[in-house]
Amino acid sequence: MIGNPGVHKILFGGDYNPEQWTPDIWEEDMRYFKKAGIDIVTLNVFNWAMLQPDEETYDFSALDDTVARVTENGMQICMANSTAAHPAWMARKYPDVLRTEFNGMRRKFGGRHNSCPNSPSFRRFALRLTEELAEHYKDQKNIAAWHVSNEYGGACYCENCEKAFRVWLKRKYKTLDKLNHEWNTHFWGKTYYSWDDIVVPNLLSEHFEEKRSQNQGLTLDYMRFNSDSMLENFKAERDAIKARIPGALVTTNMMGFYKQLDYKKWAGEMDFVSWDNYPNNEDPGAMVAMRHELTRGLKQGMPFALMEQTPSVSNWLTDNSLKRPGVLRMQSYQAVAHGADTVMFFQMRRSPASCEKFHGAVIDHSGTDNTRVFRECAAIGKELQIIGDKLLGTRTHAKAAVMFDWDNWWALECSAGPNNRLGYVKEVFRYYQALFEKNIPADIIGPDDDYSKYSLIVAPVLYMIKPGTDDKFRKFTEEGGTALFTFLSGLVNENDYITLGGYPGKLRELCGVWVEEFDSLGPDAVNHFTYQGVRYPAGMICDLMHPEGAAALACYEEDFYAGMPVVCRNSFGKGRVYYIGTSSNQEFYDALLGDISKECGLVSALEGQEEASVKEIGLEAARRENEDYAYTFLLNREGTVKELVMPLDGVDILSGEVCRKGDRLKFAPYDVHIIESKK
Amino acid sequence: MIGNPGVHKILFGGDYNPEQWTPDIWEEDMRYFKKAGIDIVTLNVFNWAMLQPDEETYDFSALDDTVARVTENGMQICMANSTAAHPAWMARKYPDVLRTEFNGMRRKFGGRHNSCPNSPSFRRFALRLTEELAEHYKDQKNIAAWHVSNEYGGACYCENCEKAFRVWLKRKYKTLDKLNHEWNTHFWGKTYYSWDDIVVPNLLSEHFEEKRSQNQGLTLDYMRFNSDSMLENFKAERDAIKARIPGALVTTNMMGFYKQLDYKKWAGEMDFVSWDNYPNNEDPGAMVAMRHELTRGLKQGMPFALMEQTPSVSNWLTDNSLKRPGVLRMQSYQAVAHGADTVMFFQMRRSPASCEKFHGAVIDHSGTDNTRVFRECAAIGKELQIIGDKLLGTRTHAKAAVMFDWDNWWALECSAGPNNRLGYVKEVFRYYQALFEKNIPADIIGPDDDYSKYSLIVAPVLYMIKPGTDDKFRKFTEEGGTALFTFLSGLVNENDYITLGGYPGKLRELCGVWVEEFDSLGPDAVNHFTYQGVRYPAGMICDLMHPEGAAALACYEEDFYAGMPVVCRNSFGKGRVYYIGTSSNQEFYDALLGDISKECGLVSALEGQEEASVKEIGLEAARRENEDYAYTFLLNREGTVKELVMPLDGVDILSGEVCRKGDRLKFAPYDVHIIESKK
Amino acid sequence: MIGNPGVHKILFGGDYNPEQWTPDIWEEDMRYFKKAGIDIVTLNVFNWAMLQPDEETYDFSALDDTVARVTENGMQICMANSTAAHPAWMARKYPDVLRTEFNGMRRKFGGRHNSCPNSPSFRRFALRLTEELAEHYKDQKNIAAWHVSNEYGGACYCENCEKAFRVWLKRKYKTLDKLNHEWNTHFWGKTYYSWDDIVVPNLLSEHFEEKRSQNQGLTLDYMRFNSDSMLENFKAERDAIKARIPGALVTTNMMGFYKQLDYKKWAGEMDFVSWDNYPNNEDPGAMVAMRHELTRGLKQGMPFALMEQTPSVSNWLTDNSLKRPGVLRMQSYQAVAHGADTVMFFQMRRSPASCEKFHGAVIDHSGTDNTRVFRECAAIGKELQIIGDKLLGTRTHAKAAVMFDWDNWWALECSAGPNNRLGYVKEVFRYYQALFEKNIPADIIGPDDDYSKYSLIVAPVLYMIKPGTDDKFRKFTEEGGTALFTFLSGLVNENDYITLGGYPGKLRELCGVWVEEFDSLGPDAVNHFTYQGVRYPAGMICDLMHPEGAAALACYEEDFYAGMPVVCRNSFGKGRVYYIGTSSNQEFYDALLGDISKECGLVSALEGQEEASVKEIGLEAARRENEDYAYTFLLNREGTVKELVMPLDGVDILSGEVCRKGDRLKFAPYDVHIIESKK
Repeated sequence: MIGNPGVHKILFGGDYNPEQWTPDIWEEDMRYFKKAGIDIVTLNVFNWAMLQPDEETYDFSALDDTVARVTENGMQICMANSTAAHPAWMARKYPDVLRTEFNGMRRKFGGRHNSCPNSPSFRRFALRLTEELAEHYKDQKNIAAWHVSNEYGGACYCENCEKAFRVWLKRKYKTLDKLNHEWNTHFWGKTYYSWDDIVVPNLLSEHFEEKRSQNQGLTLDYMRFNSDSMLENFKAERDAIKARIPGALVTTNMMGFYKQLDYKKWAGEMDFVSWDNYPNNEDPGAMVAMRHELTRGLKQGMPFALMEQTPSVSNWLTDNSLKRPGVLRMQSYQAVAHGADTVMFFQMRRSPASCEKFHGAVIDHSGTDNTRVFRECAAIGKELQIIGDKLLGTRTHAKAAVMFDWDNWWALECSAGPNNRLGYVKEVFRYYQALFEKNIPADIIGPDDDYSKYSLIVAPVLYMIKPGTDDKFRKFTEEGGTALFTFLSGLVNENDYITLGGYPGKLRELCGVWVEEFDSLGPDAVNHFTYQGVRYPAGMICDLMHPEGAAALACYEEDFYAGMPVVCRNSFGKGRVYYIGTSSNQEFYDALLGDISKECGLVSALEGQEEASVKEIGLEAARRENEDYAYTFLLNREGTVKELVMPLDGVDILSGEVCRKGDRLKFAPYDVHIIESKK
Repeated sequence: MIGNPGVHKILFGGDYNPEQWTPDIWEEDMRYFKKAGIDIVTLNVFNWAMLQPDEETYDFSALDDTVARVTENGMQICMANSTAAHPAWMARKYPDVLRTEFNGMRRKFGGRHNSCPNSPSFRRFALRLTEELAEHYKDQKNIAAWHVSNEYGGACYCENCEKAFRVWLKRKYKTLDKLNHEWNTHFWGKTYYSWDDIVVPNLLSEHFEEKRSQNQGLTLDYMRFNSDSMLENFKAERDAIKARIPGALVTTNMMGFYKQLDYKKWAGEMDFVSWDNYPNNEDPGAMVAMRHELTRGLKQGMPFALMEQTPSVSNWLTDNSLKRPGVLRMQSYQAVAHGADTVMFFQMRRSPASCEKFHGAVIDHSGTDNTRVFRECAAIGKELQIIGDKLLGTRTHAKAAVMFDWDNWWALECSAGPNNRLGYVKEVFRYYQALFEKNIPADIIGPDDDYSKYSLIVAPVLYMIKPGTDDKFRKFTEEGGTALFTFLSGLVNENDYITLGGYPGKLRELCGVWVEEFDSLGPDAVNHFTYQGVRYPAGMICDLMHPEGAAALACYEEDFYAGMPVVCRNSFGKGRVYYIGTSSNQEFYDALLGDISKECGLVSALEGQEEASVKEIGLEAARRENEDYAYTFLLNREGTVKELVMPLDGVDILSGEVCRKGDRLKFAPYDVHIIESKK
Repeated sequence: MIGNPGVHKILFGGDYNPEQWTPDIWEEDMRYFKKAGIDIVTLNVFNWAMLQPDEETYDFSALDDTVARVTENGMQICMANSTAAHPAWMARKYPDVLRTEFNGMRRKFGGRHNSCPNSPSFRRFALRLTEELAEHYKDQKNIAAWHVSNEYGGACYCENCEKAFRVWLKRKYKTLDKLNHEWNTHFWGKTYYSWDDIVVPNLLSEHFEEKRSQNQGLTLDYMRFNSDSMLENFKAERDAIKARIPGALVTTNMMGFYKQLDYKKWAGEMDFVSWDNYPNNEDPGAMVAMRHELTRGLKQGMPFALMEQTPSVSNWLTDNSLKRPGVLRMQSYQAVAHGADTVMFFQMRRSPASCEKFHGAVIDHSGTDNTRVFRECAAIGKELQIIGDKLLGTRTHAKAAVMFDWDNWWALECSAGPNNRLGYVKEVFRYYQALFEKNIPADIIGPDDDYSKYSLIVAPVLYMIKPGTDDKFRKFTEEGGTALFTFLSGLVNENDYITLGGYPGKLRELCGVWVEEFDSLGPDAVNHFTYQGVRYPAGMICDLMHPEGAAALACYEEDFYAGMPVVCRNSFGKGRVYYIGTSSNQEFYDALLGDISKECGLVSALEGQEEASVKEIGLEAARRENEDYAYTFLLNREGTVKELVMPLDGVDILSGEVCRKGDRLKFAPYDVHIIESKK
């Protein structure tokens, strides 16, 4: 799909489950798919039970039929390997494939039944199935990509995981002395004298509740271990495919800010990344965009696959409202605008029974193409045929980056104190949103990515500083970059052990401040500060800091720390470091990032337009480029009509219309224009 | 009790537990009972431990004493068989009698300790006890009825249930292929190749939480199986009694809209139905009335027993407020008005310790008859003696029916999407209430009941159409009846499998509409429509429908489906079908049912009164009839005085006063009049 | 510490955990401790794993080093025995040391890992460790006290507890007949025929949820048994110390109103009591004061140790705000004002990792003495050196007492009905607060304490009357005392069995009222009454009572019981009994207790000042006395400045300044003065 030399357009299609249907329906599907411009289907996501009816038998005949049919009809295949859900007979005969819950109870067969990642039986059977599939389909030319498992996630706490965890820990720490030190096991007398003393951290051992542990180091390592365990599953199955099909492109579908898995680490093992975009009704457009940026950033800006989205409606929310007319198209192009090179759905035909029968699909239960949803899908299909290969492989060139790190997420939110209401994604989002609202392109990067291409790196609540990260920031800033840090930063090392000697630890010199204490404010409590003449609230956490070289740009106005700085700026080498000692409102982030963006020379995605914020032009703007062309995406996220005086010349590749600087470009509700401009 | 030829009045009494007391108290009880007009006691509800102190011994001597005492005092007996609570020794020696919880944990002895319905030990011991009791008391003439177990309920998820469930499924589906198809097990790869692959659906397998399953077909069948399992218990014990006492009347006490058990199916196995009426403080009078109608409808209108109510106060609510003076009397006659032929309490004497010591009773902890509650009870007792046999066996003749179906309840609320806030009973109640407020008699019927006696059948949210139901509605309408359906109707078959080809499935032709999509609205979202000149809200679900013959009576006014119909009326044969595509407010239901009632010629229970709604006359009215007389019940549900100009001649059987058309009848707070009129 | 002849000042220090640190830090600690005036450290609270690395080895060398170091530096030691947390190896080899949860799940190693109190392994190992420690340190002269375990609490539901519970029950009831009667097991047929029939009451047996049981007698006894089981642990370890060190003073640290343990019973086994004061941000000063009074009252007024408080911040709240400057000092002296003879912290140095790394400490992660918190601590240390032995052993002489009883707490809140929102501590607090706001000294006493020293005893919601309590109240009142009771009093005996014959049972004659019924009001429902010309609300419970000799001081004004009395006063012997039939607002309690206090001749702690309520003088006042001197504590609980015209002559022992009647004494925010006056 992504990076496949045989693909010359944005593939359009999605999950297809003919095994739930009868031959007459299959023929109808082919006609409808053609009518809708569907050119890729994801097959075989949940077929293990069908492919392997018992321990000894593999039977791919039904799948062969489907493969033949879609191939005859000219479609590409995204071939899943079905290991996301083990068969019922396996759960019965080999119960070690079942997970043990966080509360200690061993599961029975059922649910989405993700398997225990450390189950010997699961590993053996999953590998064997993948080998059989790869061998069987190794010559199938229209397999655009292999899709291992499905939405990996959750966690297991069984005995096999416990044993494997001890091995993982031994590999990491080498000695119990080292582990005892890093976890500070003298606290509450938890010293381990044998690796076998260590038990999995759950409700039966260290946890009050899922987010509240009594041994942070242990819980943090278990989150890593659990993510790694599933990654081992992925790698083994990926390797089984690649061993038989050298050029195979292998991916698995991610879920944005999904806490359980360190996608940054996973992405390194994948040929391309893909994700499933299911925004809630309440999600602001900026949040959806941030998820796309996150996904794109996982592989340093490489285009990704939009593997799933619903054509109309979800079924697992409390209230599952319809996507309004035009919204599907707008959301599809938003994905492309931020780096997607496919537009795909779950699912092609609405399931007739069981858990997702009310989840939307291209073809409804009515079985007709005479529906609003089908027409909207088909219209997008047509457009994508017109666009052809124009956008494939184009890249976003951002000068601003926002840092996001899974280890930091885990450690921060597992911490007992200072404020349990603090949410990492939420705090990161506030800064991202300030850039988004200005239509300034931003990447989401990890601590180990390349910093050199950015003018600005914003790293909110970077509680944990892993080895080397402070040096990278030091070099970045010395060479002229601008970095921004916040409260609760630099506190701990990679094992959640405090960096002693004064907060913010390894960032203290960079930031030029010493944080003596931090006050935690209740949900209704608030302090204030004035920045550039405007008064803003300070809440959640208020750092009590002493400048050590930094200049105070704003100070607290209330309470016993009135007069102490809250917004500081330090010079470091040729660059600058901002330190924001509290959590404020969106207006503050907008103002602050406005100033910093100007300082750093950041510009909006709408080239030539002086003021191009979402508020000013009423539109979301994004840009992808290749060597010759820039493609400016303009999205009307609202149900009202809009108009834009064009600041650039170009061609709308959707309508084919030429537009010139000064023209008035019209936007129907949820409308989209993609302007191609020669560079 | 009901249908017993030896009973010539409305029996008055309730649960009596002399085993908690001493002989001096027993004598006092007899005096007080006489004073209060008590003529029936329910004995032996929770005595298993007393009757059978160990595996080998049965000792009925204490019960014999009680039976002799109440018999000497001229009372009837409702004889329970004590199988509601197994003895402690049994739980210890035969732990299979204990249930396994929804979360997978096996219970220990305790609680109300309802037993596992599929426990071989429980079945064996319960049957044996019942046989012994029946044999022992087969010649006891004053046993008015047998009361098997007590408030059956809950569910078990143990291994014995799992095994029995597989047998139940095999009997139902015959082949795994059929089961796999109906449950659509291809979805998420759950295909079963052996009956033993099937596990009980609970938190360890298919459930996120109690109401949210990941395999709807399985969960639905388990609810049926669980209800059936307890029904098997009931039937076995009933048969043991009837084998020894041919004329015995056997019942068990129900609980209104109790979800776990399909009371409609149960009622078919009972000689008469009975129920326990414990309204919450917040329950409107219409809700209490609806529960009485439900109970009466379970056996096609046959009078039922009001088996329990509290004389004063409950103890298991958060706030247990006293029934205000007069409320008990009013509620007792409300039960009779809607079909009860007994007035009974839990309990006769307030328990001195343990879980229900603060539950109200006829005789309080003070042990005196000098209490408000005793006086109120005794006054009712006196009145019932005056009424005598007048009301016994009289019937309600309703021309309107509201449909209620347990299978539909289970399937609808287990469905994942489109709206988790939807409550079946709540939606049904809105329609029932519109009739109730007009004092129009209504029956609650099931899909398999006789439709021919009704002019109007309202079937809200009839999501599931079981085999034959659509035909029955077709016939009913063809012959001139009026049917009303709503959103989310006709979607699935009896196994929660979608009826493909367009909603509302098998009702599409009848309703004359095609529902293309349904929008699910959040709790604060709202659309509007105008019906007969008044604007009403549309919420929860909004059907997007295309008329196929039906006339649009009202259309949406907002959003992208503004102009699409929301209230439709179709002609079908000689009849009419209404389709209401959304959930609105009570004002709308009142207006709509007002119009439909007129069309259908429905009249209020207050004969001769043109306008007789609760609002207009300030009173609830109901009517029971026999061949010669009509009894009009007039209930003042409020704490204020009322007055009614009588539209008919008759005699108030409570006061004995004659009243003539045009007289002003006075109502004290919570007052009741029952007017007997010759037909 | 308390009562130790070698101690001549208020000891100042706290929990010290050098085992988490390195030798360089230890030296720094000593310097800082000296600077801060620290003269006592609590050692060895959680060191079991360090002291006993395996089943056979005891190694006290690291502890020896610490003991030597702090001894050299002139400090006292509060020596813990480390049995609060068993080692990991023990949990692995002897899993019976692990508890079983209320939901029936057996724990694994982790958490604060309090052990099963009935585990044979735990008992054996804990005793052995304590013996070894006592033997090893028996000649260590500067051990001011022994500190057994730490914050005992929670409960276990394992098989060993179940077995021990049966033994406990047999000892209490002697026969099953007696137990069956007291628990009224005929109810729901729970009769026990063998002691082995009895199972622990938890979610698997009798409980709906933690607070809602279906067998109150059983649950009540299990709470007693669980408290007793841990007390047995304490006693065994205490005895092991005392057997080797005859003069040892042994305590354990309590937690105020901690429901699980009957501290009144525990206190009898301790040489002095100590507690950990961690007020929430929302706790009013009166609540903190009440906890101190409770603690002081546990041993009839003997001074107690303030064993722990945080110097700055907690870490386990949702929002952990800093103590404002001065608050720590004010709270420390509040403790002393109400009876503390030590001022101690958790902890000396902030932990570098794990669960409490964000809990405040005297020395912060920065490792410097240049912090606000260190400076505040050191200033208190200096003051305590100045105060010297002046306050040691002084006593509070209260003429008012508020009754609090754990058995009553357990039984009342376990009761099913009449109102689940009722909280015992909350109701008691309302009365206590009325006295506190007047600065009238009050003791918290238990039913078995000496009543003779009081003029007034307030016993809110004394639901359970244990043998002898009514007689004590009768005698107290006969001799001229004034007693106050409320709704829901006198209902049950010590086993939660109703006292039959009319409420309030054994208090009926004393109170001169018969409560016929009680109405339970919802959260928004309210009745009213007028007392001394002011109208007050009545809510939660409204008793419907008939005077039997008592005079009605106020009557209900609404509902069907309008006109019935709600506030009554009875004469009994030379004394008076008030009965308050409902729960009202604080204004009512202030007015009522104002009148009663005057009647009883109660005076404020601020001698000579006519009106000395908190509101009038803006200060909390308390007094401690010895034979020669009275010490009047004046605390400014607020962040504003205050001024007081002195009503007495004396010397401020903090500042050394003499103050004379009529002087204006100034209070900075959170300021404290302690005035010494010769008697």
